[in-house]
Amino acid sequence: MPSNALDRLTALLADDLQSVNRTIVARMESPVALIPQLAGYIVASGGKRVRPLLTLAAARLCGHKGTRHIGLAAAVEFIHTATLLHDDVVDESDLRRGQASANELFGNQPSVLVGDFLFARAFQLMVEDGSLAVLKTLSDASAVIAEGEVLQLSASNDIGTSEDTYLRVVRAKTAELFAAACAVGGLVADAPEDQTAALFDYGAQFGMAFQLVDDVLDYSARQARLGKTIGDDFREGKITAPVLIAVARGTAEERRFWYRTLQEQRQEDGDLDQAIELIRRHGAREEIVARARDYGNAALAALERLPGHPLRSALHDVVAFCIDRDF
Amino acid sequence: MPSNALDRLTALLADDLQSVNRTIVARMESPVALIPQLAGYIVASGGKRVRPLLTLAAARLCGHKGTRHIGLAAAVEFIHTATLLHDDVVDESDLRRGQASANELFGNQPSVLVGDFLFARAFQLMVEDGSLAVLKTLSDASAVIAEGEVLQLSASNDIGTSEDTYLRVVRAKTAELFAAACAVGGLVADAPEDQTAALFDYGAQFGMAFQLVDDVLDYSARQARLGKTIGDDFREGKITAPVLIAVARGTAEERRFWYRTLQEQRQEDGDLDQAIELIRRHGAREEIVARARDYGNAALAALERLPGHPLRSALHDVVAFCIDRDF
Repeated sequence: MPSNALDRLTALLADDLQSVNRTIVARMESPVALIPQLAGYIVASGGKRVRPLLTLAAARLCGHKGTRHIGLAAAVEFIHTATLLHDDVVDESDLRRGQASANELFGNQPSVLVGDFLFARAFQLMVEDGSLAVLKTLSDASAVIAEGEVLQLSASNDIGTSEDTYLRVVRAKTAELFAAACAVGGLVADAPEDQTAALFDYGAQFGMAFQLVDDVLDYSARQARLGKTIGDDFREGKITAPVLIAVARGTAEERRFWYRTLQEQRQEDGDLDQAIELIRRHGAREEIVARARDYGNAALAALERLPGHPLRSALHDVVAFCIDRDF
Repeated sequence: MPSNALDRLTALLADDLQSVNRTIVARMESPVALIPQLAGYIVASGGKRVRPLLTLAAARLCGHKGTRHIGLAAAVEFIHTATLLHDDVVDESDLRRGQASANELFGNQPSVLVGDFLFARAFQLMVEDGSLAVLKTLSDASAVIAEGEVLQLSASNDIGTSEDTYLRVVRAKTAELFAAACAVGGLVADAPEDQTAALFDYGAQFGMAFQLVDDVLDYSARQARLGKTIGDDFREGKITAPVLIAVARGTAEERRFWYRTLQEQRQEDGDLDQAIELIRRHGAREEIVARARDYGNAALAALERLPGHPLRSALHDVVAFCIDRDF
């Protein structure tokens, strides 16, 4: 019996997901050996395939009987992977999910170029499928994601970033691909327009909740005790919701701490612990989880516009699971 | 009266090209200010728009009366620009066409991300046009280009690179987009399949000739006297045709020179002059121009398969012009 809602969703789509994984492996092939080496490293490095799962679930929930959703779910994962590769280069990350990042292991140069390759491959998969509506959905999402990345870069290390800017970045960087991944499932199933719109809304709201919680988890002492890597955002000077709240509610001395560690990027031993303590002290976690719950509820409301189906229930439960993670 | 064949081709397509430039400016817009700033810098920095000109010429030559080719020519230029941006990051170039490169001026991070944005924008333009055949042509080309970039990276600084690998890189990096740019013109004009194939072949062969000559020009003393920037490839340790020939025909001592300067990247004052002298001594320029002429002749043979038209003559003359540049 799968232990949580994400595992249950995965189990319901086990065969489809296996096909997606086979497609991913087959389509990252290239006569240029470095491409499957590097792409294989990042694709295999423990992601949960949330985005392709959304495409698969949406397609089946809307009654798709064929296999078109397989290639498109792989395209969604390729776009996501390309984004991760470029993200890590831009952030100069040396770790991703506690493992050496691809740019750390292979260098920045191949990470940039293999990201480009995967992005092109994603569009080849969409062209093979042949739906202009799908191509529109995912090319629009790709442009918005890139805009969000540039916006995030413009705001990085600036502890004066507005909450509005932060939310715009989350919407562009995360919510947009969640929304597109869901909508593609509806498109491939030829679902009525209002259902595809409901799927898009579900993904967009779920994506917001997902990212807000993710940003909190990066400062979670409990996650650290569970052996998860935390503090990535802190080390990179990313300005996320817990920081914005702690800065807004902090004393002048605390603001100097945030200024030194994130804006000036001068970090010392113990600074991460101090950051975690400040975030705890100002109740940032509770505040953000409450907001994530609002987004989650909006996602569930969008789900109500879709027909009853075991996968609809699974998509319902996944939202709560992602919000009530181990803090 | 335009002074050379490229200027004459440009003059024949002046109105179309102006529309393309307007589309480029309009579609690099974004609420994220850094995007039009950076994209505008590189798009405006003196490129000759050879690739979009090919799309325009091919479309008109095949009888296209509408304006669909405008957006697609802009898409071709966006793909090219995205490639340049990523290329300069990968090569750590500080100069492009004698001006500060975008990564030098704005940093590597926005160059990566704005490249992604332009790439996504290119696909949005294609989706708006709505031709799956065009989308296939340019997504295939994009994947091949990325493969070529990775292959070039794998071979960089290796003076033992085979001629075959060098030619594969040129075919992927340059010839593929020239070919696709031409074919898109045929597709948009609904030209018979054999004409679109002829356009593709023309572009592919012309692209090979163009890049071979470009690689020679980077070691041209005459270009330097004319005030052009040379030596970019040398400084970056790129292994191009003139180097391969000079290495193959050189003495053991000369090979030590190439090994030190390109493989080990230890360069001193006077090394570029020495490289130019070795390339001259071994007749590499004449050898490569002869090969470029072979590719050029194949391009002209492909043109013969197309109907007579002033633009066909212009495309004919452009090939000879690009081969007989100022060495």
